[in-house]
Amino acid sequence: MLSLRSYAVGRWIEGTGTPQLLLNPATEEPLAQASSDGVDLAAALDHARRIGGPALRALSFAGRGALLKSIAQAMQAHRDELLDLAVANGGNTRSDGKFDVEGAIATLFAYAEIGEKLGSAKFLVDGEGVQLGRSPRFHGQHVCVPRAGVAVHINAFNFPAWGFAEKAAAALLAGMPVLSKPATSSAMLAHRIMEILVDAKILPEGALSLLVGSPRQLPSLLGAQDVLAFTGSGDTAARIRALPNIISESVRVNVEADSLNAAVLGPDVEPGSDMYELFLTEVQRDITQKAGQKCTAIRRVVVPAAVASNVRDDLVEMLGAVRVGNPALSEVRMGPLATAAQLADARAGVQRLAAEGNLAFGSATPFAAEGVEAGTGFFISPVLVEFAAGAAASAAHAHEVFAPVASLLAYSGEAPEAAAIVARGNGGLVSSLYSDDAGWIEATVFGIAPGNGRIYLGHPKIELSPGPGTVLPQLVHGGPGRAGGGEELGGARALAFYMQRVALEGSRPVIQKLLGTQPG
Amino acid sequence: MLSLRSYAVGRWIEGTGTPQLLLNPATEEPLAQASSDGVDLAAALDHARRIGGPALRALSFAGRGALLKSIAQAMQAHRDELLDLAVANGGNTRSDGKFDVEGAIATLFAYAEIGEKLGSAKFLVDGEGVQLGRSPRFHGQHVCVPRAGVAVHINAFNFPAWGFAEKAAAALLAGMPVLSKPATSSAMLAHRIMEILVDAKILPEGALSLLVGSPRQLPSLLGAQDVLAFTGSGDTAARIRALPNIISESVRVNVEADSLNAAVLGPDVEPGSDMYELFLTEVQRDITQKAGQKCTAIRRVVVPAAVASNVRDDLVEMLGAVRVGNPALSEVRMGPLATAAQLADARAGVQRLAAEGNLAFGSATPFAAEGVEAGTGFFISPVLVEFAAGAAASAAHAHEVFAPVASLLAYSGEAPEAAAIVARGNGGLVSSLYSDDAGWIEATVFGIAPGNGRIYLGHPKIELSPGPGTVLPQLVHGGPGRAGGGEELGGARALAFYMQRVALEGSRPVIQKLLGTQPG
Repeated sequence: MLSLRSYAVGRWIEGTGTPQLLLNPATEEPLAQASSDGVDLAAALDHARRIGGPALRALSFAGRGALLKSIAQAMQAHRDELLDLAVANGGNTRSDGKFDVEGAIATLFAYAEIGEKLGSAKFLVDGEGVQLGRSPRFHGQHVCVPRAGVAVHINAFNFPAWGFAEKAAAALLAGMPVLSKPATSSAMLAHRIMEILVDAKILPEGALSLLVGSPRQLPSLLGAQDVLAFTGSGDTAARIRALPNIISESVRVNVEADSLNAAVLGPDVEPGSDMYELFLTEVQRDITQKAGQKCTAIRRVVVPAAVASNVRDDLVEMLGAVRVGNPALSEVRMGPLATAAQLADARAGVQRLAAEGNLAFGSATPFAAEGVEAGTGFFISPVLVEFAAGAAASAAHAHEVFAPVASLLAYSGEAPEAAAIVARGNGGLVSSLYSDDAGWIEATVFGIAPGNGRIYLGHPKIELSPGPGTVLPQLVHGGPGRAGGGEELGGARALAFYMQRVALEGSRPVIQKLLGTQPG
Repeated sequence: MLSLRSYAVGRWIEGTGTPQLLLNPATEEPLAQASSDGVDLAAALDHARRIGGPALRALSFAGRGALLKSIAQAMQAHRDELLDLAVANGGNTRSDGKFDVEGAIATLFAYAEIGEKLGSAKFLVDGEGVQLGRSPRFHGQHVCVPRAGVAVHINAFNFPAWGFAEKAAAALLAGMPVLSKPATSSAMLAHRIMEILVDAKILPEGALSLLVGSPRQLPSLLGAQDVLAFTGSGDTAARIRALPNIISESVRVNVEADSLNAAVLGPDVEPGSDMYELFLTEVQRDITQKAGQKCTAIRRVVVPAAVASNVRDDLVEMLGAVRVGNPALSEVRMGPLATAAQLADARAGVQRLAAEGNLAFGSATPFAAEGVEAGTGFFISPVLVEFAAGAAASAAHAHEVFAPVASLLAYSGEAPEAAAIVARGNGGLVSSLYSDDAGWIEATVFGIAPGNGRIYLGHPKIELSPGPGTVLPQLVHGGPGRAGGGEELGGARALAFYMQRVALEGSRPVIQKLLGTQPG
């Protein structure tokens, strides 16, 4: 069986000890094994800091951007092979796999372009210079410089390519070396990408390392100049944040965690209208794409009570038409969950929802999927749980079920009630609104804005509308509260996490000479 | 005796239980007492969130800025009374008191001006709009909106006026209500400011509350929309950051903690030159101003070995001329420390330094101050501890002594060694460089930048040079690692902490209408 290796201190390292098995989640066939035991984590971090950091900082943004472009091109050249791994090890349909792999490539290209635009500089000038005293001689100028540590990235199982790429793109462009830790269950894709990059000798030594298997004590080894970006469950994030060194060294930690993303239908939208159809299409896509295993997927479908039964009936019909099974079959539209543990969690979550609402579609019971032996694979049907207006629905607002599961919640149609319902999620990555009523949109947008990192306004005239579940490199990804309080992407905004802002204060000619700017 | 009261839920509340005594630290005369027992903290937070937040968010930036201007003017009208309290309760000389009180007023005026410039908007448009699809119709625009919670400010004892004002200015301008908790030992000044503001009816109800006495479980009551800004010791900061709700709710916490700020003399600077004299003046000011109780004070004086004895002799002479005693006397230049506990800490710190280096000036032994009864008051002499080039000096780089105490460290004069010495502080608020050698400045600035929030470049031609110890509202204040990883001030940058950035995504005309912008 294939043994995945870690890549650190400039070489491949095979783990010792008992490895974890990586399966095909549709067939449960073992595909590979991985262990991080025996990898000297302190040496890996030290190598990245001492060798990788200086090499990246010696490059301009354009130079670092060129590296990202080469990474994207190398991935593109191996696209079909990567998609095959997404299907086999990720339980992805080919379309799901493209969402991950092509999303990764597009994000790398987007950051390559930002690097090209930032040009020959090695650090960022932040804002305008300011006169500090009575005479213009006393001058201040902020700059952002790369941090001198290592960027540790702990990624979730659902996007092994995109999660790797979107975090690495920002860190490498900022000038920080990366140690990337994919979730073990779906690590074959990230591992193969690393092999491709190492074989192509794209990056300077120490700029990019990969740890497969358990992270072990990795977060405990970070110091004041290091940063940690984590995507995964709120529970794991909480354990990381509470580590003594993370607290005492003020290690920057960015978290993307749980989110009960809401899609809200406005009171003006009539069944059958273009806006209504768009709403249904995007809800259905978010429930079933990647079997609902997207942190940005719509979990709460909030509709006016007057049309709740229409929405229910239409969604039930649409979900019923989704073919669920082995994603290696071209006619299948939804694959399995990633692991047996995820399936158990999802079933428990559906039971929690069903205890308070009504199962309008699907259930927690074992599901007979297409194209696999009966009882094989981590399959669950799409699930829609319906709640009457005013129902407590406490589980619907408090527990993210990371699966093709959504709650349908009726409300009055009034903007303040919509905002109050969205706020019960206690902070989210994205909420989406579907309405043509400018007054309702304004009241609802500003009502929900403090609790969301992104607000998507559905509109049928947007060509190839990606829906709220798609994260774009130009827009920030992250959200307050339950979502982890983090922020990634957003174009050049992403660099800030990997850089130290410094105020330079002194004589204007001295500072201008230092920064290479001309006197004004 | 005066009983300080808290101001919450729109009224003054006297604490119950055993109060803490507030003293004159020069005479140890009791001046007031304070207790927060019996104050319903949950009700105070709830009132701020429900009443204060909406009232502030209903105002434009210009409207909030006008409130700040009124606060500044009210403080200005009571300036002499406030200075008297700084002397009596803070142990400040009149000059120290001005540094605090006038710094507070200037910062409020600076943020009032920012509010005026931001004008009639109630939220910030962040960056340019971006085209997201093939057609310009699919559009993205980031905005920053006020958070819907309360901003809790826990301030340090050393700047009861400025600490209150600089934090409140940013939060109120952003649109968040404030609950301010001054350090109890020196709370008379913040308490009097609150009285002045309440009497003048400047702020909307719930916009500003004051808690005197222990914070009790205040940080444990915060949720996802609240923020906490803390200035004080790293130990207390660590306890706050580890609280379960702070972690699970992703409560934003900004920390300004310990910092071993370094002042580095370049190898080109000759004794007797203008740059050399400026360096001495600013080091001496930072050691003695507010008896060294400034988070930005120079703690490590790093000089080329070739001139180390000159610097030592000159500083010893200058420190010897400083009259230490009751700050109520006009001839006194340095007052006592704030409390008996601070004095005990400072003495222990001096002993730690002296165990590794040589006491060039002063000591940890009890100090006979001017104008007080022998043995009265929390006085310590200025202290300079000298270390030879290459000495381990581990305490000098690891323990902030919050007192008129500095370490004098010799180095080769080479920029990389200077950077390595500065980096041993593991993150700082500010470092200062004194040199006319552009090459040395460049190498040292970029060597130390990742570890510092601010870099001050001393220059004798800057009129009224404030030195590195003065925090200006235009420049960010905060630093990585030991300094807490926080960031305050920096002009409009300060607002970000109190606001949620949200990406708006959708049809361009819809978003432009929503934001009131005209189609381009």
